[in-house]
Amino acid sequence: MSKAPGEFELITRLTAKLRQSPRTILGPGDDCAILAPSRSRQLVTIDSMVEGVHFELGWGTPEGLGARALIVNLSDIAAMGGVPMACVINLAIRPGLGARFFDRLYAGLSDAASAAGVDIVGGNVTRAEALAITIALFGEARKSLLRRDAARSGDDIFVTGTLGDAAIGWRILAGELKARGPSRKFLVDRYLQPVARLKAGQRLTRVNPAPAAIDISDGLLQDLGHVLKRSGVGAEIEAGAIPLSSAYREVMGDNLEFALSGGEDYELLFCLRPGRSETALTQRLGVPVSRIGQIVRGHRVTLIHGGGRAGVKAPRIAGWDQLRAHDIR
Amino acid sequence: MSKAPGEFELITRLTAKLRQSPRTILGPGDDCAILAPSRSRQLVTIDSMVEGVHFELGWGTPEGLGARALIVNLSDIAAMGGVPMACVINLAIRPGLGARFFDRLYAGLSDAASAAGVDIVGGNVTRAEALAITIALFGEARKSLLRRDAARSGDDIFVTGTLGDAAIGWRILAGELKARGPSRKFLVDRYLQPVARLKAGQRLTRVNPAPAAIDISDGLLQDLGHVLKRSGVGAEIEAGAIPLSSAYREVMGDNLEFALSGGEDYELLFCLRPGRSETALTQRLGVPVSRIGQIVRGHRVTLIHGGGRAGVKAPRIAGWDQLRAHDIR
Repeated sequence: MSKAPGEFELITRLTAKLRQSPRTILGPGDDCAILAPSRSRQLVTIDSMVEGVHFELGWGTPEGLGARALIVNLSDIAAMGGVPMACVINLAIRPGLGARFFDRLYAGLSDAASAAGVDIVGGNVTRAEALAITIALFGEARKSLLRRDAARSGDDIFVTGTLGDAAIGWRILAGELKARGPSRKFLVDRYLQPVARLKAGQRLTRVNPAPAAIDISDGLLQDLGHVLKRSGVGAEIEAGAIPLSSAYREVMGDNLEFALSGGEDYELLFCLRPGRSETALTQRLGVPVSRIGQIVRGHRVTLIHGGGRAGVKAPRIAGWDQLRAHDIR
Repeated sequence: MSKAPGEFELITRLTAKLRQSPRTILGPGDDCAILAPSRSRQLVTIDSMVEGVHFELGWGTPEGLGARALIVNLSDIAAMGGVPMACVINLAIRPGLGARFFDRLYAGLSDAASAAGVDIVGGNVTRAEALAITIALFGEARKSLLRRDAARSGDDIFVTGTLGDAAIGWRILAGELKARGPSRKFLVDRYLQPVARLKAGQRLTRVNPAPAAIDISDGLLQDLGHVLKRSGVGAEIEAGAIPLSSAYREVMGDNLEFALSGGEDYELLFCLRPGRSETALTQRLGVPVSRIGQIVRGHRVTLIHGGGRAGVKAPRIAGWDQLRAHDIR
């Protein structure tokens, strides 16, 4: 699309300092970026962060915002067990944000890209009413890939890290929940500074047969639902096995609402043929791993409380409505 | 980013009907799309169309809007002489637009993609305050590529088609200019239904040495300026040689404002070693080609009126400020 005066200068300024690896033949500045041929299967994903919908500017630094925009995309590559390679970025800008803000945003993007071995190969700037960062990310597949449709009855279901922290952190930033001291910082950081489980995803591709996997961006139940639907199976989840941080317990007690349906975790959920221990997996993947249940026949999710099977109160938050299709009891 | 209830259903609905070629191993529905390895150098570009900035909904059909969003991206691949292959689409949606609207938008996107041999391999939906369609497009390079930095002193400068029509069409739709009958329809269609010069770009890659090229999205002067800056050269443009449609002349007379700086043309500008005729190139590229001037040493653009060199009145529209850096007289 045609550019207004200033848009071209801004994107030129922002992309001028970027450095690319030798596999990028031509970076920003032409009609397209040029990348070297790829001998592996290629992975592609696109995601967007919109001001007022996914974040508010006052919640963190511009650098942190830029880094986070890339990391939530990296998480999609992690969930396939891929190696991220390059990205192009569309920045929708609004009045009231100066060049210094965008310099800092791009510094955060650039640092996060370097840390993940990703080249920022192209960018675009357009006017809009709200700031939005949209990133298309390309990666390469390892020999094996983690797909959502590979779960089979009998598989154990595992997750990395702890769940629900980021959803609480978001609500602390939005003034809807409160926490103190180190717990507050931990929870807020879990939202502001998610980690893409790239290494863990890549290591999982060496398991045979290839595990089903997904990243938990929409909440455990919703994302598990995607795996179940694509694989044509159901699941039993042990409520007591869902990994919670001590900060989570401090704020929520035994309430699993955000762990089940909070979203923004960017942990991995994966399904393995039975027989692997949490300890062995934790060591192998380099990140804490918890077994939370198993894949069963059918299309239902059953949440098991304590010794017996029991219903779960439907939390009225994002992630839940999605799961009704799976007939949770 | 986490999805609100309804966003997942919408993107699932929109992408369910899409069909992909065999080179797409996995289309929408997982964390990433999976594409076959590419033996050629790869091209990547991203562009965005925002409601209220680049278009208004009342100006055309949802199908036309979808098609246009893809075509302006295809134009960037055309300007490199590449072959478009696959795209991912981020849709920012706002309240007030129903599923039927998005079905029609995606039908237009899908038809334009099929016509260009492009697979839509992934999509994302997010809430926002305004409708925005952001597309990242991937293509493959032919043996040779058209770059902005390849212009050399002495080259002839050519453009395809006629210039300035789309800028007038836009202003007719916005109520700022008027035209009647077939001229109105022609000009409005030039804005609503641009053509990406893919074949012409691909055929240009067979010329040796590879021509410099760019697509004219920001206006002739601004886009020529990009080529000059990247190539470290200047240009002399013959005002009388700039190709104008009869509809353009009907509305604007001899005023070159929109032909020079109007934007949204999506024609190609390219630079060739001297000695090639418009007629031969028109036949070879399959689209009307006009010689509009030549590349010279230095860093200035001189606009030649009639017999002598003369200044050009600076139009106060987008595309102009950009060129000041090139010291237009």
